[in-house]
Amino acid sequence: MSMIASGPVLSQPALAPRGVYNFSAGPGCLPEEVLLQAREDIWNLMGSGFGIMEHSHRGKTFDKVLAEAEADCRTIANIPANYKILFLTGGATAQNWMVPMNLLPQGGTADYVTTGYWAQKSFEHAKPFGAVREAFSSKSENFKFVPQKDSEIAYDAKAAYAHYTSNNTIMGTEFHWVPTPPKGVPLVCDMSSDIFAGPLDVTKFGLIYAGAQKNLGTAGTTVVIVHEDLAKKKVRENPEFLRYETFAANESRPNTPPTFNIYLTGQVFKWILRKGGLEPMAKFNAEKAKLIYDAVDGSGGFYKGHARPDSRSLMNITFRLPTEELDTKFISEAAKQGMVDMKGHRSTGGVRASVYNAMPRAGCVKLVDFMKEFMKKNG
Amino acid sequence: MSMIASGPVLSQPALAPRGVYNFSAGPGCLPEEVLLQAREDIWNLMGSGFGIMEHSHRGKTFDKVLAEAEADCRTIANIPANYKILFLTGGATAQNWMVPMNLLPQGGTADYVTTGYWAQKSFEHAKPFGAVREAFSSKSENFKFVPQKDSEIAYDAKAAYAHYTSNNTIMGTEFHWVPTPPKGVPLVCDMSSDIFAGPLDVTKFGLIYAGAQKNLGTAGTTVVIVHEDLAKKKVRENPEFLRYETFAANESRPNTPPTFNIYLTGQVFKWILRKGGLEPMAKFNAEKAKLIYDAVDGSGGFYKGHARPDSRSLMNITFRLPTEELDTKFISEAAKQGMVDMKGHRSTGGVRASVYNAMPRAGCVKLVDFMKEFMKKNG
Repeated sequence: MSMIASGPVLSQPALAPRGVYNFSAGPGCLPEEVLLQAREDIWNLMGSGFGIMEHSHRGKTFDKVLAEAEADCRTIANIPANYKILFLTGGATAQNWMVPMNLLPQGGTADYVTTGYWAQKSFEHAKPFGAVREAFSSKSENFKFVPQKDSEIAYDAKAAYAHYTSNNTIMGTEFHWVPTPPKGVPLVCDMSSDIFAGPLDVTKFGLIYAGAQKNLGTAGTTVVIVHEDLAKKKVRENPEFLRYETFAANESRPNTPPTFNIYLTGQVFKWILRKGGLEPMAKFNAEKAKLIYDAVDGSGGFYKGHARPDSRSLMNITFRLPTEELDTKFISEAAKQGMVDMKGHRSTGGVRASVYNAMPRAGCVKLVDFMKEFMKKNG
Repeated sequence: MSMIASGPVLSQPALAPRGVYNFSAGPGCLPEEVLLQAREDIWNLMGSGFGIMEHSHRGKTFDKVLAEAEADCRTIANIPANYKILFLTGGATAQNWMVPMNLLPQGGTADYVTTGYWAQKSFEHAKPFGAVREAFSSKSENFKFVPQKDSEIAYDAKAAYAHYTSNNTIMGTEFHWVPTPPKGVPLVCDMSSDIFAGPLDVTKFGLIYAGAQKNLGTAGTTVVIVHEDLAKKKVRENPEFLRYETFAANESRPNTPPTFNIYLTGQVFKWILRKGGLEPMAKFNAEKAKLIYDAVDGSGGFYKGHARPDSRSLMNITFRLPTEELDTKFISEAAKQGMVDMKGHRSTGGVRASVYNAMPRAGCVKLVDFMKEFMKKNG
């Protein structure tokens, strides 16, 4: 297509460095190189003469965006062809009812492993659809840990599925293993806050879902990886657009999908591949988290971690200072030095440093230096 | 908050003009000044040191983004306080079932005015929820027109609501008046493809919905303007996140909303206000559409409009050439000259020029020149 100049070349101001490390629990920080690419592509995508947001979801350019996003996702986790990769809307929360609506027959039962606020929400939202049960709960101990082996989980061999949350954003706990429910019980996982933080064998799962705004891009799309048999399962009459099958059969676009959000997730996939994939990502994340946990553990009790050590999250690091006043002072002084959004969730308080894939190592080093300095002054 | 430089200033290439007019039916063209602003804000929003996609949906910066989007929307159409403005997900299509789920009691009835492909989809999607009926249909005449007065619509005075589609994107027809159902029957409108194209009196409506990707921004959020009484209505048990009330009571963010998409819609609202609001927008759109319809009408039948003249859309202009081969040649040669995406919907064929709010007058002038030139060569 020939390009007809429609106006003068626009001069752009030089881009100032941002100077801030964003420790938000989500929406969280994104790789700067993804943002720089997005800046180009919202103006003019692939030389088309217009931007990603303006392309028809049925056009050849978006065909390519969508196909690449799916293919790159498949490459990253070596996802076999009998799993569908879907880009849905409504947040991970929408999966709280889409999962039971589509997988839990009336009168059937499903197991929930409730290890935190969102895990419990998933359980609550499933109740209207069948007899769901808590196969494990750490609520009585303030969700400080997740189970460490299958024998801690009271599985029901007749369950339609077993659901767990691999990382608990609010509590700062994480599964470092994959549960194995009884044979024939598909495993369903809310992986919103640690998907693609390390290697993932999807064949252990029936269905994985993840809101994009932590490790996969921007809020507005939810990645669902689902075994083709489960995608087709029909346990009740559901509205057409609340069935996985509708999206699986129509490349996630039975209607207009959130095109920009899918594009952005695709760019994050490309960034993960450029970084070498999930093995290097796991090493990178372990190193970053260790820097901060070492600072907690080496503080002689000044910083006190919330999670039981065997359940510590590599994504969300939660701790408290000796008083609530010091929590507040820590968060506020850190922000003044360019380390922002570390206030704990309103349900837990304290400090939370979220260090998703996109958090540079330098951000963690800077935080650790600040933690030591702050303790010296206030300890 | 102090800004700590974390790296060298990045030089940016000069921004080349795009040179293309995008006549896509949606996602469609966006105002270039909105894109230029978005380029800045995805890097560093309001001097926060990070971009709009990275801000927490509970943070002060996004509070401001959301509050301004709502306030600007209210200003544009003078929306009174007893109407809620919601930003939802799932596209306008999700409203096809959210409307009956929330407003149509089991055993109740609702009226649908089916004037096109999407209007008919709305009707079909509502069927599982109650006894819906077609109060008007122009299907037998290939949806070439919309009703011109209330007496053409067979209203049911007992209907839970009456639903219509103000602009039919595929057919290129549009209501230039607002129906008045019997007293007590709320009017529900899918306004996806002509919202804010001209003045709007929301007090005539119970509920208005519009996918953002035509006149309000980028795909991924749907604006719903709903009377507070309807937002509270409860006709059956619905999942918490499929109730209007859940979003109305929680500023559209009971969970993580599509923050970037809401931001972008907010930027489009600001652009509409800078243009002077809906009166000037109506004049602008009428002028643009007239240029093209005059070229159709003045072609001695070479270009043949699909819509009956009284029902012509100012947003989507549909016409055919003497043969299908000429349709294809027209679309292809126009694209070569920088006027892209004019292929009619797969269900209708022909040519469709979508000229939403963001289409510059110069794009329409250029198209008209091309139409004359093409006819001279091929007529």
